[in-house]
Amino acid sequence: MAKKLTSRKEDYSKWYNELVVRADLAENSGVRGFMVIKPYGYAIWERMQAELDRMFKETGHENAYFPLLIPKSYFSKEASHVDGFAKECAVVTHYRLKNDENTNEIVVDPTAKLEEELVVRPTSETIIWDTYKRWIQSYRDLPIKLNQWANVVRWEMRTRLFLRTSEFLWQEGHTAHATKEEAIEEAELMLKVYTEFAEKFMSVPVLQGYKTESERFAGALETYCIEALMQDGRALQAGTSHFLGQNFAKAFDVKYADREGKLQHVWATSWGVSTRLLGALIMTHSDDHGLVLPPKLAPYQVIIVPIYRSDEQKQAVAEKAEEMMKELRAAGITVRFDNRDTHKPGWKFNEYELKGVPVRIGIGPRDIENGTLEIARRDLLTKETVKADTAVTYIQNVLEEMQTGLFDRALKYREEHTTKVDSYEEFKEVLEVKGGFVVAHWDGTAETEALIQEETKATIRCIPLDAEEEEGVCIRTGKPSARRVVFARAY
Amino acid sequence: MAKKLTSRKEDYSKWYNELVVRADLAENSGVRGFMVIKPYGYAIWERMQAELDRMFKETGHENAYFPLLIPKSYFSKEASHVDGFAKECAVVTHYRLKNDENTNEIVVDPTAKLEEELVVRPTSETIIWDTYKRWIQSYRDLPIKLNQWANVVRWEMRTRLFLRTSEFLWQEGHTAHATKEEAIEEAELMLKVYTEFAEKFMSVPVLQGYKTESERFAGALETYCIEALMQDGRALQAGTSHFLGQNFAKAFDVKYADREGKLQHVWATSWGVSTRLLGALIMTHSDDHGLVLPPKLAPYQVIIVPIYRSDEQKQAVAEKAEEMMKELRAAGITVRFDNRDTHKPGWKFNEYELKGVPVRIGIGPRDIENGTLEIARRDLLTKETVKADTAVTYIQNVLEEMQTGLFDRALKYREEHTTKVDSYEEFKEVLEVKGGFVVAHWDGTAETEALIQEETKATIRCIPLDAEEEEGVCIRTGKPSARRVVFARAY
Repeated sequence: MAKKLTSRKEDYSKWYNELVVRADLAENSGVRGFMVIKPYGYAIWERMQAELDRMFKETGHENAYFPLLIPKSYFSKEASHVDGFAKECAVVTHYRLKNDENTNEIVVDPTAKLEEELVVRPTSETIIWDTYKRWIQSYRDLPIKLNQWANVVRWEMRTRLFLRTSEFLWQEGHTAHATKEEAIEEAELMLKVYTEFAEKFMSVPVLQGYKTESERFAGALETYCIEALMQDGRALQAGTSHFLGQNFAKAFDVKYADREGKLQHVWATSWGVSTRLLGALIMTHSDDHGLVLPPKLAPYQVIIVPIYRSDEQKQAVAEKAEEMMKELRAAGITVRFDNRDTHKPGWKFNEYELKGVPVRIGIGPRDIENGTLEIARRDLLTKETVKADTAVTYIQNVLEEMQTGLFDRALKYREEHTTKVDSYEEFKEVLEVKGGFVVAHWDGTAETEALIQEETKATIRCIPLDAEEEEGVCIRTGKPSARRVVFARAY
Repeated sequence: MAKKLTSRKEDYSKWYNELVVRADLAENSGVRGFMVIKPYGYAIWERMQAELDRMFKETGHENAYFPLLIPKSYFSKEASHVDGFAKECAVVTHYRLKNDENTNEIVVDPTAKLEEELVVRPTSETIIWDTYKRWIQSYRDLPIKLNQWANVVRWEMRTRLFLRTSEFLWQEGHTAHATKEEAIEEAELMLKVYTEFAEKFMSVPVLQGYKTESERFAGALETYCIEALMQDGRALQAGTSHFLGQNFAKAFDVKYADREGKLQHVWATSWGVSTRLLGALIMTHSDDHGLVLPPKLAPYQVIIVPIYRSDEQKQAVAEKAEEMMKELRAAGITVRFDNRDTHKPGWKFNEYELKGVPVRIGIGPRDIENGTLEIARRDLLTKETVKADTAVTYIQNVLEEMQTGLFDRALKYREEHTTKVDSYEEFKEVLEVKGGFVVAHWDGTAETEALIQEETKATIRCIPLDAEEEEGVCIRTGKPSARRVVFARAY
């Protein structure tokens, strides 16, 4: 039997890395900082994509595709944007390799140097607004509501599978509007879409809020975000939606003629979630036995493991399994049958526990005799013997319970790890001992925010959308504050 | 009203370019050689992806994702592969931009030079086989049957939307097998999948064959292909499937222990189709009025255009349209209602003709009085007045007819433009005057193939899988030949 995972208590970070690799989700590639997303991990991402894509289309968006490589000069056009991304760009400088005649090695062909370097997109605002300039003349051309599924590259020195990699997969929405109000409405709508996705599909409860100025996206006037809490008490930003004002329209000179024929700059939003969500999913639900998946995102919801000694038993068990698969599929449940005879049932039980398959059915000769099945559920690690003819209904209920049960468990954890504090001593102690979200007063300045981060490694995760007005004093400076904000140490 | 398209007769190439842009399929971006795939074009690609993905999964493949950037040294490992791709690579040499203090411009940071250059993938055999080395130890680990949906970059000097662009979207399958036979079977299976997709979904008839040595994929032992014929008599390679032998396994040292414990190199295939298929789709079916789409790939199959003068009429027509949409959707037909009052019905008729929406329904006050609808079909440019209560069945039939009708029309064109010739004079004349596939004897040498290409611009598109053994003499050299091959001028 395979070695057990490192436990979360022992070493949370090691537990995570081991789990990601051993559950066949992803691994580091031969290219430093770049990951390979393995089929099982990619299948989860495909389920995420399918749901998000449906939600985007239901809210009136269409997909399109824009170039991977962006001329360097485009970045210079929006000043804060280039500041935010210049430090982490992969730069294409040449368009050909050649054989070196002296060394007989493959080298970059110096005669194939680009006149202007191209940057591998870290995000696509610049190339898209360069395109929108051609598409937008009149108010009749607005709104434009597009989304792109793509890969992006942001050079990272320290990488972690899914959480921080030099290349990641994501979707980026880019919309253009006639009015400020409409753009803000769009940015807020997409935050709601992300929230619904996180909570209903990933079973991950999130705080909705907006970022402080220093945490905003480079080029945004407002960055809305959803923040999740991991089991080690650290926060993880799970999605962002930006109100970009007229910054990109001004940088790329995109104007429309309004109904009166007056030229106006266009208003913009952008919003994105990435394969980072897989990190959030894993760290929210999984345990020391391996991955735990909400049924709605599981590549398959049920695994059937046959138990037999003789060929005759094998045959009978296989027939029962086929029958069950047919019934489960008819009920809309995804199922696989692992009839490999290269591995023993005990090995398989461990394997599917590690991979987080929500429900496991064991079928042996005695089950066939008794008309029963052994059904194990991954979230609670319990098993029950169930009459075969009630199994489908039983499993349907289990899957529904699991989907909401995982959410409830994560919400309870978050509630237990959300602490209101009123002094800096208490603030530091909570961060050290308990972790989680710390809700405290702050004087609203970037200086204090930076000071607190330097002293405690905690950042302001968000100013909650539903933050109540409450007069108080900043925990660090004692200056007045109008509402509490949410701090945490974060991924 | 918008200007008419250039006709195919007048200037086929101009017709194509105008159509692609005006039907909102794609356009050139600000980055030379890179295209923007517009929402309507991308929606067709999404339908292609969905069908292909389903077919890949039904034949036992899973999706995964591998890095965009590949170390230069990986390419050197497979000699013919690097020869094939080195000349057209985008090369990343640096990982940071910075602000130049003197000029205040954004420049490449010379201190951020990569130790080893990274190539933007032109195809992923090398990075995938570097990964497979870690995954494959025993026969139990085989087969591996993966596919990747990705973007690739191959630097092109002369580009044409969809047909030849420096970046394109594609899928690339990469499989690993224990035996030669199994790998060949896989390569042939995927050719069949591509053929079925082209013929059943795109309504594009294709020849199935294999390439001559000089036209093979760089690194393949056999390249299978499907070849389509465009309306200007030029051929277009629509998909390829490669039997790679043990070339990549040897280059990346990938061995498995067989059942006897003996180490063997692994056998490989790879296969791909790309956004180039959109070019094939457009050029096979479209006419001087614009795009013509097979219903199975149309972003929406039916467009409803309301015709009214008064508000009262508008209201009545809208109600009828809503009713029709409900009925059509219930029958599994995709439909949109263009109720914009910024554009006149005549403008809309032209617009949807240009965009190739298969069926157009016009509803006016008289239709409501008479219980009729005016139904126009895009392929034949005919219209008919139909009783509203039979409209759904009528449209279902039209869509089915259109799907097979387009195929039949294209097949007829191909048959009329496939010519057997037995002399070089005739060969050249057919190419000049009639175009199309020219079926002729060839002596089997790369020299003659090159000579014919030089003299006539025709290449051997394929040796058909079903080519009959037939003794003959090469049209160019008079040397003996065992079977005819298919020549054409090609995209």
